[in-house]
Amino acid sequence: MITFFSTEHQRHHGVELKDAAIKPSFENPGRADTILQQVRQAALGDIQPGRAHDSALYVGAHSERYVRFLQQAWADWTATGQTHDALPLIWPVRDLRSDLEPATIDGRLGFYSMDAGSPITAGTWAAVSASADLALTGVQTVLDGAPSAFALCRPPGHHAGPEMMGGYCYLNNAAIAAHHARRQGVQRVVVLDVDFHHGNGTQSIFYGRGDVLVVSLHGDPVHCYPYFSGHADETGAGAGQGFNLNLPLPKGTAWLAFRDALGVAAQRVRSFAPELLVVSLGVDTFEHDPISHFRLASADFVRLGEALAGWGLPTLFVMEGGYMVDDIGRNVVNVLQGFEAGAAGAQPL
Amino acid sequence: MITFFSTEHQRHHGVELKDAAIKPSFENPGRADTILQQVRQAALGDIQPGRAHDSALYVGAHSERYVRFLQQAWADWTATGQTHDALPLIWPVRDLRSDLEPATIDGRLGFYSMDAGSPITAGTWAAVSASADLALTGVQTVLDGAPSAFALCRPPGHHAGPEMMGGYCYLNNAAIAAHHARRQGVQRVVVLDVDFHHGNGTQSIFYGRGDVLVVSLHGDPVHCYPYFSGHADETGAGAGQGFNLNLPLPKGTAWLAFRDALGVAAQRVRSFAPELLVVSLGVDTFEHDPISHFRLASADFVRLGEALAGWGLPTLFVMEGGYMVDDIGRNVVNVLQGFEAGAAGAQPL
Repeated sequence: MITFFSTEHQRHHGVELKDAAIKPSFENPGRADTILQQVRQAALGDIQPGRAHDSALYVGAHSERYVRFLQQAWADWTATGQTHDALPLIWPVRDLRSDLEPATIDGRLGFYSMDAGSPITAGTWAAVSASADLALTGVQTVLDGAPSAFALCRPPGHHAGPEMMGGYCYLNNAAIAAHHARRQGVQRVVVLDVDFHHGNGTQSIFYGRGDVLVVSLHGDPVHCYPYFSGHADETGAGAGQGFNLNLPLPKGTAWLAFRDALGVAAQRVRSFAPELLVVSLGVDTFEHDPISHFRLASADFVRLGEALAGWGLPTLFVMEGGYMVDDIGRNVVNVLQGFEAGAAGAQPL
Repeated sequence: MITFFSTEHQRHHGVELKDAAIKPSFENPGRADTILQQVRQAALGDIQPGRAHDSALYVGAHSERYVRFLQQAWADWTATGQTHDALPLIWPVRDLRSDLEPATIDGRLGFYSMDAGSPITAGTWAAVSASADLALTGVQTVLDGAPSAFALCRPPGHHAGPEMMGGYCYLNNAAIAAHHARRQGVQRVVVLDVDFHHGNGTQSIFYGRGDVLVVSLHGDPVHCYPYFSGHADETGAGAGQGFNLNLPLPKGTAWLAFRDALGVAAQRVRSFAPELLVVSLGVDTFEHDPISHFRLASADFVRLGEALAGWGLPTLFVMEGGYMVDDIGRNVVNVLQGFEAGAAGAQPL
């Protein structure tokens, strides 16, 4: 399996509000570098850079003004004389308005975000656009005939909505890839999100669409970030009604229960008959992840890969979360190797 | 004029996210203490403690579950083993859901807030309930026949909505007082907000009601906190249509322009024919305020008080913002003395 990787990710290393203090983010450059190292050691396959794409290709998954905001935010921020990481201070919740874009960068930071964990730094645009370009390069590779590919994206993307950053995410790499595939003529795409946290951004982007089925297994938002999204009754709207499937799982979920939920997902995917699978691959379902509550062991990630191979679809893996840096590389490679082993003997879904 | 004051305010001294760091809040205990000192030096009148009220009296302005949340938040927070100030991390913006209350305190903190500047601390409930009780005591004093009273509330209240804390505010003291007056049989109450920042909470609380007119002069939210509220086209809804008047003013507004806006406010108030005036008194319109952009001089606050006296209404002053601690006391006393001087020779509105 080809891995697409860019060193540009290193240009984004931010802070987050945690325990009433500003600390270096859990989502740090070491994550991607350790995954790359394991991909190399395991001899998974070629490692290639992504091709640069016009940012117009991010539009569709995102609004044009949001992409422009991301691109210009650091310049707008430093133009006010500030040099530290830009974090929002207030958010347009409840009956506050989100129909008028504020004129100042302070206001716009809140307007286009949902949390206090996603700073704009000097290198954020370089990193997030390179990350999205890996997903675009990866999906094109699969569209061109590769059975699978791995976009080693960092920063991750699945919390980023049509015009919203948050949860360490800025551009929704998986959604950008899925939307691109549709633009290239693929009729039906499924995005499967196996990250511990609900991919609220991916859900939002495709909520009104019937051409991209979004399926997510995640920690129940009653207890888990992002809290305000990911419930089972969120099933899509309008043309997208029935094309969003949330499978929230309780704290402490281990492989057997996770596998069963994956079976429910497979059933829905089968009836949708997609032509392409995009996997939002988070490995923060790992038993030792510092910010999550599932109990998958390293060997379970092999089984996850095997199970996904059983779906028999051209597949793009897009890296999302996972914060136990010592083990993240091994767990990711386990999924990808499990997939390759499974694909060798796979039956169509 | 009687001043109502409680030392309980000192139990709330929090932190806020500012310049990508956690710093002691601008809204600090020194604010109220310096105002009290000036009230005393100026011999404005008696200084009395507030009477304790049942928290059920906060309901109406706020929802019952929000009051319960505030009351229990610190206990819920420390029950998770955390001992530092509790700050939210994620907010239910845009298409995220605000119809389901999360089960965990981390989720509830975001569910009931709008910004990262309003921590729950060990003493928050003691301080905010004492602050609201000052407003209740003050309004009852006016209902009982005093021509005016000053509730030296801290923490302030005008950003706190029906179920939302933010902007250093938790319980909306002015709204609680106004609602109490209505419950006591006052037919029409006007809340005038002269704080630099739009009182989004007060607006939200009365937005659908025609019995409480809310009028606010403030920095234009296109440029100023709270950004997502305070525009001129927010005029009320349903039975409250036409009973919300926002007068956003440009950066650098000085007394003459402020006075003219006050004239527009007076005209609207006159046609409403209220029986009681509640003034949300912020003095962060001061030219040297560290976080605001108006240019009122200290002497202008005397003129503000005189102008309000000219309205000829029983009046409760409720303390809101103002962060230039060296001058805040003098500016507040200037308003109150100006009011008393004006009242001595006032004509009915």
